[in-house]
Amino acid sequence: MSPAERIDPADLRRLGARALASAGVPADHADAVAEVLVLADMFGIHTHGVERIPQYLDRVALGGIALAPEIAVEQVAPALVRVDGGNGMGPLVARVALDEVLSRARATGIAAAFMRHSNHFGPVIPYLHLAAEQGFAAVVASNATTTIAPWGGRQTLVGNNPIGWGMPNPDGDPVFLDMALSVAARAKIRQAANAGEPIPDTWALDADGNPTTDPRAALDGFLQPMGGHKGYGLSVMIDLFAGMLSGAGYLDRIGSWSSSPSDPQDLGHVMILIDAGALLPREELAARMDDFQSRIHATPPADPARPVQLPGEREIAAFRRSAEHGIELEADVVDRLRALTGDA
Amino acid sequence: MSPAERIDPADLRRLGARALASAGVPADHADAVAEVLVLADMFGIHTHGVERIPQYLDRVALGGIALAPEIAVEQVAPALVRVDGGNGMGPLVARVALDEVLSRARATGIAAAFMRHSNHFGPVIPYLHLAAEQGFAAVVASNATTTIAPWGGRQTLVGNNPIGWGMPNPDGDPVFLDMALSVAARAKIRQAANAGEPIPDTWALDADGNPTTDPRAALDGFLQPMGGHKGYGLSVMIDLFAGMLSGAGYLDRIGSWSSSPSDPQDLGHVMILIDAGALLPREELAARMDDFQSRIHATPPADPARPVQLPGEREIAAFRRSAEHGIELEADVVDRLRALTGDA
Repeated sequence: MSPAERIDPADLRRLGARALASAGVPADHADAVAEVLVLADMFGIHTHGVERIPQYLDRVALGGIALAPEIAVEQVAPALVRVDGGNGMGPLVARVALDEVLSRARATGIAAAFMRHSNHFGPVIPYLHLAAEQGFAAVVASNATTTIAPWGGRQTLVGNNPIGWGMPNPDGDPVFLDMALSVAARAKIRQAANAGEPIPDTWALDADGNPTTDPRAALDGFLQPMGGHKGYGLSVMIDLFAGMLSGAGYLDRIGSWSSSPSDPQDLGHVMILIDAGALLPREELAARMDDFQSRIHATPPADPARPVQLPGEREIAAFRRSAEHGIELEADVVDRLRALTGDA
Repeated sequence: MSPAERIDPADLRRLGARALASAGVPADHADAVAEVLVLADMFGIHTHGVERIPQYLDRVALGGIALAPEIAVEQVAPALVRVDGGNGMGPLVARVALDEVLSRARATGIAAAFMRHSNHFGPVIPYLHLAAEQGFAAVVASNATTTIAPWGGRQTLVGNNPIGWGMPNPDGDPVFLDMALSVAARAKIRQAANAGEPIPDTWALDADGNPTTDPRAALDGFLQPMGGHKGYGLSVMIDLFAGMLSGAGYLDRIGSWSSSPSDPQDLGHVMILIDAGALLPREELAARMDDFQSRIHATPPADPARPVQLPGEREIAAFRRSAEHGIELEADVVDRLRALTGDA
C-alpha cells in the first residue's frame, strides 16, 4: 500500500473529471462521473471511488463502454421515465436519471427511472445522498454479473445485486443502507484460502451446491446469499425490477466485465424517489427522525465498547471527515489520475 | 389437529364476511377483510388466513381495533396518497389503499400509499397478487411489534418487518417474494426447546446479546435478523418507510398485540405500484418473463429430487390447487367461523 495523500473533495472532482476528459469523455459527462465517484470516496467506499476511473477508461479503450454515449430519456408516464444509457459509464447514466426523477417527483410526489444499456454505476450511497439533500427518500438498485447460484442450484445465475435505501433528515443525519446480497465478499474467502484457514459454512457452496468450510472449494463454487432462500429471492426481485422492467439484460444475459471486457454488459438500474415533504411537514419529520435515532442509540450494547449504530452511520462519519479534512487516498490512486491528465 | 375440510374460495369469502358482519363490521369492510384473508388461505398461508378472524374480533371486543373505522384517504400529490386507517383491521386499510394506488398509478405510471393508524394486515402476497392481476409490479411492506435487537444491541427495538415484491406476467406465472427478516421463526426455537435440542448459533441471541445454541436462552433473548447487520438495516429502512414517512408508530412506539391488546398499535404500511405496461409492451414483457423463468428452472439442482424454483412458486401452486379443488382448512377453523355467524 502506497502512502496516503489528503485531497480536497472539489480538487479531486476536478482531477477526476480532467482525467476522463483527457481520454475524450465530454466535459459534462466527465464531471457527472467524477461527482459520483468522489462522493463514494467521501463516504469511505474507496473500492468504488475514483480508483475506478482507469478501469472505466480501459474498458472504453477496449470498446466495452461508449466514450461519448447518447443518453435517451423517455418519459413514458407523468411519474415514470425509461433511460437508455447508450452503453455509457454507469455513474453518468444514473446521474442523468437522478436529475430527471427528482424533477418528476417534485411534481408527482413519487417518481422512478428504469435504466438499461448501462454499466457498473459505483456504490448506491452517492445517489441516496444526492436525493436526501433535496428532501427525497430513495430506493436505488442495480443488477450485476452473476456470482450466486439460485437457492438449491449448482450454477451461478443471479447477481450479488446491490440495493440501497435512503431517508432524508431535515435537521440531522440521514439514514442510508447500501448493501449487496452475499454473506461474505469473495475477497474474504481468498484471504482464508491464502492463510490456509477454514471459512464458516454459511459463506459459500462448493461446485456441487453444498455448503463448504474449505475456502478453495468455495472459490470453485458460489457465494451464498444472505438469509439463504430469502437473499436469493431478493436477488431475483432486484433483477426483475432493475433488469426486466427496464428492458436491460438479466441473469446470465448480463455481460461479464472480467471475461468479456470489450462487450457491452447491458446492466439495468432502478431508482425510486419519494418527496418526504409531501408526506410530513418539515418540523414533524425532523422531530420524528431525531426521536427514532435517539432510541436506536440508547439501546444497551452487547459490547460496551461498541455502541449501537444506525445503518450508514460509519459512512456518514467518513463523509463528514472528508468534507472537513479532505479525502484520504493512496498516493498511487491520485498519481494514476494525474498521469491520465498528462500533467504528471 | 382437526380433520381437514375442502371449501370453495367464494364460499369461504362469504362465510368470513358474514362472521365479521355478525359482529357489527360494516358489510363492505367485512368483504374487503375476507377477500384478503381468503387469498392468504388460497396461497397456503393459513397462519395469516381466515383463522385470524376470531382474533381480530377479540381485539375489537377489547377496544384494540375499531369496529367501523373511518378510513381517510388524502391525496398529497398526483402520485402519492396518505391513508389514516382509523385503527381499522389491517387488511381493510390496505385493501382500500390498494384501490386508490391502482387508480393513481394507472394515470402516473408509479404511485404509492403510506398508511398509518393501522393493524396487522395479513401476509403481503394477497396485495402482490391483486396488483399483478392488473399488470402492476409492487413493493409492499409493514412495520411490526419489536422482536429483534439492533445489531450489536441487547434489547428488542426493531420488528420482524415483512416486505414483499411482486412482478406481473401477462401470459404466465407472476413472481412473488413475501418475506420477514428473522433467520428462523420463534415457533421453531420453541420446538427445539421442547425437544431438548440445540439450535444453530445463527438463529437467536441470548439476553446479553450473544449468539446462543441453547433454545431456552434464545427464548429469553432475541431473534437474529437474516444476514446480521444487513437484516437489521433492512428492518430499520422498512420502519422508516412504513412507519416514519406514513406518520405511524415506529420502533417501540408501536403497540404490542399480545401485551396490550386493548390499545391501538398504530402500525404503518407502505405500498408502491408500478405500471409494467407503461415500461414494456405486453408481448415483450411476456417473452422476457418466459425466458427469465425458463433460465431459472434450467439450473442444475444440488439435489436432483428438488428442482430449482422461483420465489413464490410454491405459493402459486397452492393458489392454483385452491382455485381448482377448494381450500383445504382444518374443520375447527371453519366451525369457528360458522359459530360466529350464529348458524352453527
